[in-house]
Amino acid sequence: MQYRNERDTMGEVKVPEGAYYGAQTQRSIENFNIAADRDRMPKEIIQAFAWLKKAAALTNREAGVLSPEKTDLIVQVCDEILSGKWEDQFPLVVWQTGSGTQTNMNVNEVIANRGHILKGGKLTDTNKILSANDDVNKSQSSNDTFPTAMHIAAYKMLLEKTLPGLERLRATLAQKREEFKTIVKIGRTHFMDATPLTLGQEFSGYVAQLEHGIQAIQHTLPHLAELALGGTAVGTGLNTPPEYAEQVAAKIAELTGLPFVSAPNKFEALATQDALVETHGALKTVAVSLMKIANDIRMLTSGPRAGIGEIRIPENEPGSSIMPGKVNPTQCEALTMIAAQVLGNDVTINVGGATGHFELNVFKPVIIYNFLHSARLIGEGCMNFNDRCAVGIVPVYDTIRKHLGDSLMLVTALNSHIGYYKAAAIARKAYLENKTLKEAALELGYVSAEEFDRWVDPARMVGKIS
Amino acid sequence: MQYRNERDTMGEVKVPEGAYYGAQTQRSIENFNIAADRDRMPKEIIQAFAWLKKAAALTNREAGVLSPEKTDLIVQVCDEILSGKWEDQFPLVVWQTGSGTQTNMNVNEVIANRGHILKGGKLTDTNKILSANDDVNKSQSSNDTFPTAMHIAAYKMLLEKTLPGLERLRATLAQKREEFKTIVKIGRTHFMDATPLTLGQEFSGYVAQLEHGIQAIQHTLPHLAELALGGTAVGTGLNTPPEYAEQVAAKIAELTGLPFVSAPNKFEALATQDALVETHGALKTVAVSLMKIANDIRMLTSGPRAGIGEIRIPENEPGSSIMPGKVNPTQCEALTMIAAQVLGNDVTINVGGATGHFELNVFKPVIIYNFLHSARLIGEGCMNFNDRCAVGIVPVYDTIRKHLGDSLMLVTALNSHIGYYKAAAIARKAYLENKTLKEAALELGYVSAEEFDRWVDPARMVGKIS
Amino acid sequence: MQYRNERDTMGEVKVPEGAYYGAQTQRSIENFNIAADRDRMPKEIIQAFAWLKKAAALTNREAGVLSPEKTDLIVQVCDEILSGKWEDQFPLVVWQTGSGTQTNMNVNEVIANRGHILKGGKLTDTNKILSANDDVNKSQSSNDTFPTAMHIAAYKMLLEKTLPGLERLRATLAQKREEFKTIVKIGRTHFMDATPLTLGQEFSGYVAQLEHGIQAIQHTLPHLAELALGGTAVGTGLNTPPEYAEQVAAKIAELTGLPFVSAPNKFEALATQDALVETHGALKTVAVSLMKIANDIRMLTSGPRAGIGEIRIPENEPGSSIMPGKVNPTQCEALTMIAAQVLGNDVTINVGGATGHFELNVFKPVIIYNFLHSARLIGEGCMNFNDRCAVGIVPVYDTIRKHLGDSLMLVTALNSHIGYYKAAAIARKAYLENKTLKEAALELGYVSAEEFDRWVDPARMVGKIS
Amino acid sequence: MQYRNERDTMGEVKVPEGAYYGAQTQRSIENFNIAADRDRMPKEIIQAFAWLKKAAALTNREAGVLSPEKTDLIVQVCDEILSGKWEDQFPLVVWQTGSGTQTNMNVNEVIANRGHILKGGKLTDTNKILSANDDVNKSQSSNDTFPTAMHIAAYKMLLEKTLPGLERLRATLAQKREEFKTIVKIGRTHFMDATPLTLGQEFSGYVAQLEHGIQAIQHTLPHLAELALGGTAVGTGLNTPPEYAEQVAAKIAELTGLPFVSAPNKFEALATQDALVETHGALKTVAVSLMKIANDIRMLTSGPRAGIGEIRIPENEPGSSIMPGKVNPTQCEALTMIAAQVLGNDVTINVGGATGHFELNVFKPVIIYNFLHSARLIGEGCMNFNDRCAVGIVPVYDTIRKHLGDSLMLVTALNSHIGYYKAAAIARKAYLENKTLKEAALELGYVSAEEFDRWVDPARMVGKIS
Repeated sequence: MQYRNERDTMGEVKVPEGAYYGAQTQRSIENFNIAADRDRMPKEIIQAFAWLKKAAALTNREAGVLSPEKTDLIVQVCDEILSGKWEDQFPLVVWQTGSGTQTNMNVNEVIANRGHILKGGKLTDTNKILSANDDVNKSQSSNDTFPTAMHIAAYKMLLEKTLPGLERLRATLAQKREEFKTIVKIGRTHFMDATPLTLGQEFSGYVAQLEHGIQAIQHTLPHLAELALGGTAVGTGLNTPPEYAEQVAAKIAELTGLPFVSAPNKFEALATQDALVETHGALKTVAVSLMKIANDIRMLTSGPRAGIGEIRIPENEPGSSIMPGKVNPTQCEALTMIAAQVLGNDVTINVGGATGHFELNVFKPVIIYNFLHSARLIGEGCMNFNDRCAVGIVPVYDTIRKHLGDSLMLVTALNSHIGYYKAAAIARKAYLENKTLKEAALELGYVSAEEFDRWVDPARMVGKIS
Repeated sequence: MQYRNERDTMGEVKVPEGAYYGAQTQRSIENFNIAADRDRMPKEIIQAFAWLKKAAALTNREAGVLSPEKTDLIVQVCDEILSGKWEDQFPLVVWQTGSGTQTNMNVNEVIANRGHILKGGKLTDTNKILSANDDVNKSQSSNDTFPTAMHIAAYKMLLEKTLPGLERLRATLAQKREEFKTIVKIGRTHFMDATPLTLGQEFSGYVAQLEHGIQAIQHTLPHLAELALGGTAVGTGLNTPPEYAEQVAAKIAELTGLPFVSAPNKFEALATQDALVETHGALKTVAVSLMKIANDIRMLTSGPRAGIGEIRIPENEPGSSIMPGKVNPTQCEALTMIAAQVLGNDVTINVGGATGHFELNVFKPVIIYNFLHSARLIGEGCMNFNDRCAVGIVPVYDTIRKHLGDSLMLVTALNSHIGYYKAAAIARKAYLENKTLKEAALELGYVSAEEFDRWVDPARMVGKIS
Repeated sequence: MQYRNERDTMGEVKVPEGAYYGAQTQRSIENFNIAADRDRMPKEIIQAFAWLKKAAALTNREAGVLSPEKTDLIVQVCDEILSGKWEDQFPLVVWQTGSGTQTNMNVNEVIANRGHILKGGKLTDTNKILSANDDVNKSQSSNDTFPTAMHIAAYKMLLEKTLPGLERLRATLAQKREEFKTIVKIGRTHFMDATPLTLGQEFSGYVAQLEHGIQAIQHTLPHLAELALGGTAVGTGLNTPPEYAEQVAAKIAELTGLPFVSAPNKFEALATQDALVETHGALKTVAVSLMKIANDIRMLTSGPRAGIGEIRIPENEPGSSIMPGKVNPTQCEALTMIAAQVLGNDVTINVGGATGHFELNVFKPVIIYNFLHSARLIGEGCMNFNDRCAVGIVPVYDTIRKHLGDSLMLVTALNSHIGYYKAAAIARKAYLENKTLKEAALELGYVSAEEFDRWVDPARMVGKIS
Repeated sequence: MQYRNERDTMGEVKVPEGAYYGAQTQRSIENFNIAADRDRMPKEIIQAFAWLKKAAALTNREAGVLSPEKTDLIVQVCDEILSGKWEDQFPLVVWQTGSGTQTNMNVNEVIANRGHILKGGKLTDTNKILSANDDVNKSQSSNDTFPTAMHIAAYKMLLEKTLPGLERLRATLAQKREEFKTIVKIGRTHFMDATPLTLGQEFSGYVAQLEHGIQAIQHTLPHLAELALGGTAVGTGLNTPPEYAEQVAAKIAELTGLPFVSAPNKFEALATQDALVETHGALKTVAVSLMKIANDIRMLTSGPRAGIGEIRIPENEPGSSIMPGKVNPTQCEALTMIAAQVLGNDVTINVGGATGHFELNVFKPVIIYNFLHSARLIGEGCMNFNDRCAVGIVPVYDTIRKHLGDSLMLVTALNSHIGYYKAAAIARKAYLENKTLKEAALELGYVSAEEFDRWVDPARMVGKIS
């Protein structure tokens, strides 16, 4: 490969000839050779930086500290990046400095060099139109840009992936709730036969879980909407024009169409990542919900002959390389694996969030890496689970009816007529002697046949099912 | 010890002669001999059950399904329990059935037996005035009472301990923020010298953390205010009078003075503990914040001679059994240990919350046990940390001044005048030649002495400090 | 209450008149009012300190730095403590200084004061025979005694509770493995019907899990056997006689009968608690195993009529306060809750272990508190689960036979005769048309009736079952 | 794109014209559109499958159940895969079926189709020389191959990356331990000044941590060396030739040069992933150690003027985009972020490991994905940290000397001469009056100047430093 020489404050560095990035990016490539083909800084962060750099340039121009020409150039390159160009110019990994400085400089360098090219310059020119530090990074520090990019990327991911995925699955389950609302079936508590409910009621629980989960995420959004930008190095706003913080936040809000505001306290916004810790607390709650829902569905569909088998799910693929004809609840498996991943990511984020010192948390890359992972997995996981599994759930009437009819726990309906203790005696007798409840009840003489039929009516045991 | 015989649906059990509890409590004592002297069901749960049983009895009476006499008796015993009586009558541990059935029955039995005594009966009477299952537990199941008691106990703990503790610490730190607002000091990022800020600004970050943490908890309260009661066995409300669920929730709200409502979806309320998972997500966020704050304070006070030493904290006790005169930041240590505990409790709660099946989550005792632990530790921990440490924090002016004066990062103020690269050269020269910034700046000839003094003024580098 | 005055290097403190503890214990009571009735320093730590103080005194005497008279006195009090006396003299909580200094001083004070009494002195005497710091704590620091006590207490708990509990459960399951070795039943993968195995083989997996778990714990014991004692304040052994570290470790080994050795590196032994982190890594592995085993057993016993129902477990108590006759797998629930607790405790221990600085980890109390909790819960939990559940597991032959006979996955036996694809066609046909495998096979004409019976023999599909 | 039709037991599927994979891989691509550009099944798993398929084919031939021609063909394609060819033929993601069946089939399909091509066939031929299920997968199931591939990949990663990385860092730190062995410096406990030790002793603690960590990993290797292969569908070994399990394990051991053995209990080996849970327990212990070490180093190097500053580390890059001349401990930051990641991965693995049911754990892909991530991060992270930071650590003698000379805790040396209480008085006086220890000691008259100089000699307070 051919190289050119680039300089930073520490001296010269060889950079691939045509690369738009410069010395500091190159140093990071060399200094952090860790999981290089696996843990790249997420492209959502690069995109967020493009919004941010554009907004900062525009705000700087309005404040009179950046020339219109330089501003236009920066804006133009940012738009290119936002259009998806230059992805290969951001080669850094997550395992770098904990402030994300190197990714900030990567963006600064690419914008400065690409801008220079756009104006007809050459990468090897000693003097460039744009300075990475003095122009592109003007009124900024890595310490306020990186957390700002984190919040932008996280917020966008939540709105574009996570919440739509959850909402789509919620809607399907709500439709199933309606479809299944008159199908009376046996309930199960402690994994044991219990009193009846409708299949629609069972699914209504899942819907309520997702509704609460969506709300839990939304409750955390105001904190996440707070942007650190304008705090610069330690939160004081050193080297920024007056009112810069508020203006640049408003600009980012305008450009992204999202309700971002300037963080009322910049010291918190740099020194901690509590907002992401908090929002991920909601994501882990959702993961807990999804684990429950997907487990239930795989257990309800278990069998086909020696399981519970009360619902059927779509058969998407052959299930086994050795057992012919086997079909498995593979979508449930993917979703529960995702839940496990999110529960682990939560701990990583907690440890990172808790280990900041003084004016700067330096676990930023690992925090956002795990956050975006979770947010995306939940969103895409729900979408996929919805389309390939949930929409196709159908009841297995025969099995449902059989399980309901056999149930000993229908005896609970007798409590208010003959008391808990006599009802218990009926259930025990039926169980031990392998009889129906009615047979046992009549033999014990606690009720008449007519009373039994009137009182023990599963359809009347499930409450309102409107 | 002397015993009497008690019966349940499985037969006879020997119970200590004078115990108010009965057969099922005794079975649990015998069946679950695990950490018996350590992990007792929290007394907050017993208290919550007393509120709940009282409210249920009153609601049952209004619905005409419980006699006024029985109602009064139940209410009377509940009031005794609420007054702190009979704590020794609730001997069960957390490691029991996952639905908390045995604790529900423990409460039912104690109320039934104590009520009988209050009416002049004897524990050995075969017929009792109150039946544990048919009267005290009327219109209830363990499956809806236990999660209801969990929410009541959790909500009360948050309001009585957690939030007041956080609020007290927040207020003290806010006062320090004001006291310290003009004390300019060196900032630190990456644990390295950085540009200045005021000590008040540094503390303002802690205040913002706690404010956000308090808000994060409050955002989750509406979900926690939803009560499962009225769902009975599987959520359908079997064996309850009409409108019972709403009425009993209103009664509990009235009795406790807290804004409880009937859960709109009882299936979610029994089958999951998502509300507690969600609220504990806020508690773990607070733990992350407390870890950061306490770490900062112990590091800021480190020394006295070979550390950072910019603040002093109260000296509460001799610090070492071998090093005479040593004093340690012990309050910080207790608080960070609490943070570690809460981060672990979160995982326990997540695993428990995620592993429910069908109509009932059966990790209820372990979930509430860990939840109350965290909520209490945060509350009492903050209170204690506040009173024994935070209130007594004072600045060490000499050290602060010395660190600030020596700082190389004051050079950042020159960026807008001479550019980042020349400023860097000054800082490097000063560092390598062990000089002051001014000396290096003048030797390099980038600024005049007058310019240096005008531009590099720490007090003007900290922004607005109103 | 009446008080007496006690002094330490910070001045006078009022101590309850008859208390054996002194000024520093009292300061800790006052300074750390957190979960005071819940999170007491475990008594196993106090006992471990008694072994340690006794061993230190004896070693000091042999080294000629402690008089025989003082030594005897210290030994005598330690023996009293080991006999269970004076538990109420150790009132401190876990939430204290992170080095455990206050508990070390609590022990020093109690020994010094009690020793003085034994010699006929009075608690109010100004001059005592024993000095807490200079005699009882001689050649020691909190920084080496507390981690030593942690290792002693942990090691003993593992040997006395954890491993015996695991071993007992393992033995029972091994016996079931033998009892059940010829009972052919359906297998389940993905919670779906699969090829057969014997019930004994299924249980053999649980046995192998526990065997590996026991071994995993044992592999970590050599690290845990390393004692910090002799390192004193920072690991250098300041203020100890020559060869003291090795001799005192040998003495502790002799007194306890356990293979303790002096840590080859005292700096690691003070500055980290890696040994406990490592051993708890084995405990969390065991928790994972127990979760699997207990989940399987509760699912295998599910029903009685609408579940899997292939085994029956002991019926220990009525399962429901509302559903008469219900019986639940409560022992499985307790054990899985314990597993959840241990998984959370692991995170607490990791966070504590990771957050030490320089020469001392100061999360010691929270680490040992959680460690002992896990070790005890696993031990007592397995013991209880064994005695109240595992020993009474019996197969339900009818259900096992029915599930096996219906199974479509027996078709797998045909793979080697007619190939995977034809076998799949048979299974699909049987499934969709609700037929037996044989019917479908014959209708498709892929095998003859005789071939089918010869090839599809469940008993021959389970391999060696010796 | 052009497509060809492929068939499996569920019917026809369109597959990209030139793809070697077939119907089942294609179904998985379509059914699991989750994080498709991020979470690919690790290539180490594909490589492990190539070893495994080769070994299985050779063993099948020896058993006489696979023709030499087919065997050779399979071997040939496996060797191609092992050489790095065909990486683009394995496009599946982690979020698939929890048994990894689809990746097993992906491998089977690629081998079958590529083998057919090698023999001059065409992808569109209806009859292929090799059958994916009947030949390539012969004597195998996904249920035993996937966990076998997991163990192979994990074991290799540990030996090729993790342990060498740890060993390299250990060796460097051991060299520093020797280099620094006579540099006496102040110790710090509770982040406060304490008695002295040498810098070499401080580093010896890190070395001991890594030694124990390496050993902890090695202790778990025997369990990890157990291979599931031969268990087929549920552990019984259905459809395998006699002695197959032992022979194929021996073959894998021979081919890989690693000490693999056939798992003594195949039921455990399929139904659980306890071995990986256990080994990752050792990896999380190492993560805890690395967090401590990297934190210490960044704190020791803090400053340059207002921190601790007792060591200097290499300056690899400009540290700040706004603060000129700033240099940060970026390698420490990357390593501590890695530690946070591993601690989270551990929880994911625990949750996945704990949630298996009956004969098969179906969290296999997420478990191995996180395991390999941790193992690689630790290995490459240590390597990188070693080369870019640890090797270049140098002491800052002036600062070390100054901190040591100022230290009040040198007073501890007086304990054995004048007792703890008088020594404390000296330290307090010096602290409060801002004097040297000697001044305070002489003023109090507890020692003579000569005694002070003789007794308080830091170099004699650090014990043996051989």
